[in-house]
Amino acid sequence: MKYVRYCCQGKISYGILDGNTVREIEGGLFGQRNTTDFTTDLDAVELLWPCEPTKILAVGLNYKSHLGNQPAPSNPEIFYKPPSALLQPGGAIRLPQNGRDVHYEGELVAVIGKTIRNASAAEAEEAVFGFTCGIDVSERYWQKNDLQWWRAKGCDTFAPLGPVICASYDWNRGRIETRVNGAVVQSGCFSELLFDPIKIVSYASRHLTLMPGDVIYTGTPGHTAALKPKDLVEVEIEGIGILRNTVA
Amino acid sequence: MKYVRYCCQGKISYGILDGNTVREIEGGLFGQRNTTDFTTDLDAVELLWPCEPTKILAVGLNYKSHLGNQPAPSNPEIFYKPPSALLQPGGAIRLPQNGRDVHYEGELVAVIGKTIRNASAAEAEEAVFGFTCGIDVSERYWQKNDLQWWRAKGCDTFAPLGPVICASYDWNRGRIETRVNGAVVQSGCFSELLFDPIKIVSYASRHLTLMPGDVIYTGTPGHTAALKPKDLVEVEIEGIGILRNTVA
Repeated sequence: MKYVRYCCQGKISYGILDGNTVREIEGGLFGQRNTTDFTTDLDAVELLWPCEPTKILAVGLNYKSHLGNQPAPSNPEIFYKPPSALLQPGGAIRLPQNGRDVHYEGELVAVIGKTIRNASAAEAEEAVFGFTCGIDVSERYWQKNDLQWWRAKGCDTFAPLGPVICASYDWNRGRIETRVNGAVVQSGCFSELLFDPIKIVSYASRHLTLMPGDVIYTGTPGHTAALKPKDLVEVEIEGIGILRNTVA
Repeated sequence: MKYVRYCCQGKISYGILDGNTVREIEGGLFGQRNTTDFTTDLDAVELLWPCEPTKILAVGLNYKSHLGNQPAPSNPEIFYKPPSALLQPGGAIRLPQNGRDVHYEGELVAVIGKTIRNASAAEAEEAVFGFTCGIDVSERYWQKNDLQWWRAKGCDTFAPLGPVICASYDWNRGRIETRVNGAVVQSGCFSELLFDPIKIVSYASRHLTLMPGDVIYTGTPGHTAALKPKDLVEVEIEGIGILRNTVA
């Protein structure tokens, strides 16, 4: 089942995506929801980031291919991106005026569907509503030189997300590809994740309460490079979809 | 003018605090609000954290007396605490099961009243709705050893906040005192802040959009020490009030 959040004639709704048709659902994604009879052609709607997180977690150093000379972490190395950094699918990433070296990072993103704390692996698995695509946009100079990554990872537009949430996605067989202007610049299999999504959710929930709609960017594979104005970035995850963003 | 958020007979409201009386206001704190005729005795209400932030910013190394051997930063060193870390006034700070060294940090907290981005000093000043009290609870072992401070600063209950927002507070003449079990353990003047609240707001807004209700913990003076079960922590700011929390 694929879910989207969309705007149609000024109204924002959640819906089920079936081929080229969106069927509106009532009651939000995570509570008691009802499928309605109201359908719209996909071309007639604007797809939005697919849920409304109260917080955004992300994981660093989560693929061997991205570690470089750094040792593999013994626990998921989590950080936050603020909700103000969210960017709609199709939206333009803004390079900050004083930023120097803004990189793409294509990522699988887990969407939490339940309020959980101290979740076992089984509880964590049940609490994951589905998966979507994200770009963990990162300014490398600030990432190296600031005490914390608040702006390196948190500027406005640094969290493109969506547009499709795929429920019951078999991530262990999935793969991701990032393209810049059509050229493949990153590719990886989720079986290569050092900490898989369930381990991350369970570990995070031992410290903080995760809420419905919260999202977790699970890390990026391989190498990254700087974005420049007018670039087109695409993150494609087999079985989920494609997230496309430009650079302003 | 002093504002509170409170629960009375199961209903959550915003109100104006006048001596021992709370007068309900309609329409929230930041939009078009109306003062009502409905008043309640302060003793009859439960005071809550005083606003509902979409994000919580905090600043490290912002008093010379807290720097230790570290050089003074050239910009505010910002980080995030997640909204799930908020703790009500009077609530109990929970020491994480595997935490070793959980410290208090009494702080002045700025409350944002307008949506701002790229704010000048004058715009930042106008966007600050008021100030309240906070404790930036911090686990020092994780703060030293994790890549980022997500759990060192972000566990559930690590962000006690409130209960009173004082609008048009003259922070430059204010001072803060933290007490543990009645003994003064921190004291400082806000004139000693390396980056004052207006500079912090303006600087942060150059990177991310600040929203009504967002809060910024402005840093802690002097030295801190570990909390232990049953401690009573009080943060008092002259002209604002006292935030009291226990340790579970």
